[in-house]
Amino acid sequence: MSISTLARDTRVAMKHGGGGRATRSLIGELLIRGFDEPARGFGLSALDDGAAIPIGDGQSLIVTTDSHVIKPIEFPGGDIGWLSICGTVNDLAMMGATDVAGLTCSVILEDGFSLEVLERIHESMVEACRAAGTTVVTGDTKVMGRGEIDGIVINTAGFGFTRRVVRDCTLRAGDLIVVTGTVGDHGMAIMSARHDLGLGMSLVSDVAPLNGLIAAAMRAGGDALAAMKDPTRGGVASALHEMATKSGVGIVVDEPFVPIRDAVRSSCEMLGVDPLQVANEGKALIGVRPEAVDRVLDALHSHTLGRDAAVIGHCISEHAGSVILDTGFGRRLLIESDGEPLPRIC
Amino acid sequence: MSISTLARDTRVAMKHGGGGRATRSLIGELLIRGFDEPARGFGLSALDDGAAIPIGDGQSLIVTTDSHVIKPIEFPGGDIGWLSICGTVNDLAMMGATDVAGLTCSVILEDGFSLEVLERIHESMVEACRAAGTTVVTGDTKVMGRGEIDGIVINTAGFGFTRRVVRDCTLRAGDLIVVTGTVGDHGMAIMSARHDLGLGMSLVSDVAPLNGLIAAAMRAGGDALAAMKDPTRGGVASALHEMATKSGVGIVVDEPFVPIRDAVRSSCEMLGVDPLQVANEGKALIGVRPEAVDRVLDALHSHTLGRDAAVIGHCISEHAGSVILDTGFGRRLLIESDGEPLPRIC
Repeated sequence: MSISTLARDTRVAMKHGGGGRATRSLIGELLIRGFDEPARGFGLSALDDGAAIPIGDGQSLIVTTDSHVIKPIEFPGGDIGWLSICGTVNDLAMMGATDVAGLTCSVILEDGFSLEVLERIHESMVEACRAAGTTVVTGDTKVMGRGEIDGIVINTAGFGFTRRVVRDCTLRAGDLIVVTGTVGDHGMAIMSARHDLGLGMSLVSDVAPLNGLIAAAMRAGGDALAAMKDPTRGGVASALHEMATKSGVGIVVDEPFVPIRDAVRSSCEMLGVDPLQVANEGKALIGVRPEAVDRVLDALHSHTLGRDAAVIGHCISEHAGSVILDTGFGRRLLIESDGEPLPRIC
Repeated sequence: MSISTLARDTRVAMKHGGGGRATRSLIGELLIRGFDEPARGFGLSALDDGAAIPIGDGQSLIVTTDSHVIKPIEFPGGDIGWLSICGTVNDLAMMGATDVAGLTCSVILEDGFSLEVLERIHESMVEACRAAGTTVVTGDTKVMGRGEIDGIVINTAGFGFTRRVVRDCTLRAGDLIVVTGTVGDHGMAIMSARHDLGLGMSLVSDVAPLNGLIAAAMRAGGDALAAMKDPTRGGVASALHEMATKSGVGIVVDEPFVPIRDAVRSSCEMLGVDPLQVANEGKALIGVRPEAVDRVLDALHSHTLGRDAAVIGHCISEHAGSVILDTGFGRRLLIESDGEPLPRIC
């Protein structure tokens, strides 16, 4: 074994799937080693939401993949089928490919899985594709024995073309950080659906295809739309940490301006969870040069999925790689957790 | 439930993952329903190894996906990492994209999986990419709890560009069927590795990246290379059935000419398995117009992976959709099995 930080571990643990530091360590120190970069464009080592391959005529092919292992497979606001389309559409959109050329879909089923449930999941995928203006172009089906897989896992890969590749490493001091809506909805809905929390509150996932919203923001922002990332596993905290680290800036988050639904806020308080560390599936973090922020906000607010968009922070040249939480009463470091508090969140 | 043939089933069964009739029924009657075709090119409903999207300038983007659930994950001749690269490279090659632009890779791990084994699997993936002249450009990592997934599952999607899209539905009467080497090696190696068969024979998987071999065959055959398909799950029987059905031809297989290693032949005989129904992971079936068959065979024989290439059959206008086995003593229908005899073969 030639693994450095991972050397403390000899086995995979749940934290390695949490999307936080442990995941990045597993990926960076083991999984991406040895693979060549694509001849042109950028790939694995960028640790971006996907890869970008220039194909001539000023266009790039964006490629991304995600396996969906969410539990439960049906939850308030969506199901694994809807999520598996939206998740990949959103990863493409984060890199500028809002026009999704197509998706691949590979379904892994457990022997004995209900065909009726499968049909419902399938209908959700069809519906999500329509909402995103795309389709599944090729697929694969595997079956594993009883007890060899927990019901159903769906992998989707997506590809799209864009003339403007957006990165998550291109923030600079002075940029403003916009979130396209309320945070924490997805993770808290799953937590509530999985455990009977008895919260008596309406927690609904935000899972939605963002490509239409992002296209509007890109049109409004032009080149002043500086960077994007969707705060999925690990939440806003993890996504901002990654953007800050890769961009070499510090990010100050103005906590009072972060939009959070009442139900999410109170259930987070009851459980002692920070909503900034909870997964989202229908939100984006957008870094915007200050001169364009009003235009971008207007465009977001005009779209159903962007009504609660808000400026929640700004970038500074000090404290590169750190995310600082300004609570309104004082400042403290926003720690990135080792992993998502809840496993199998997406 | 509006499922016709599937209506007899209410639950997924192992046969639905076998790559034979049951898989096609699940895919055709449920999984592809409702998805639009891509605006240009062809997608899901072609039930091809992948999709083809014209991108202008005479080029097409080929996209394909496969999840790999093989058991055991390390076997004579390869492991799940090597297989997951080769399988997708080969699907691209079957459609003419022998120049593989890149792969996506999504790994799903069980909590507690050995990092040492993961590192070996990863090395195999790197090695297979080098052998195929490509790389992994983007990825995803998920972890499921103990008992929620059997160790490791790897999904790869692949994309490549080609000016000549090859299909599996374009055979015509008179075409010859070439197999690029011995059949049944992969399936029998897995069967032997999984169960201690006590055969005392050397059974080794054929899993290999075929894109170099196929590029040579395409150069030699030109437009007279009429159709291709790799005989994976369900073996040669299933692949030829699919080609015959889609092309509207009958296929006569000359059984004595099918290259089969002695060890595979005798272990198949002992177990009562037909080697034509056993999975391969390093072989292709190529339909060739008669005038080009010598050129194509020469090209195949000149390549390490094509030394045992042979003409094993021909297409007829009668018995469209059927595969007829000529044993040398008489003719009988080669039945396509409902599914692969062995689950989790790839």
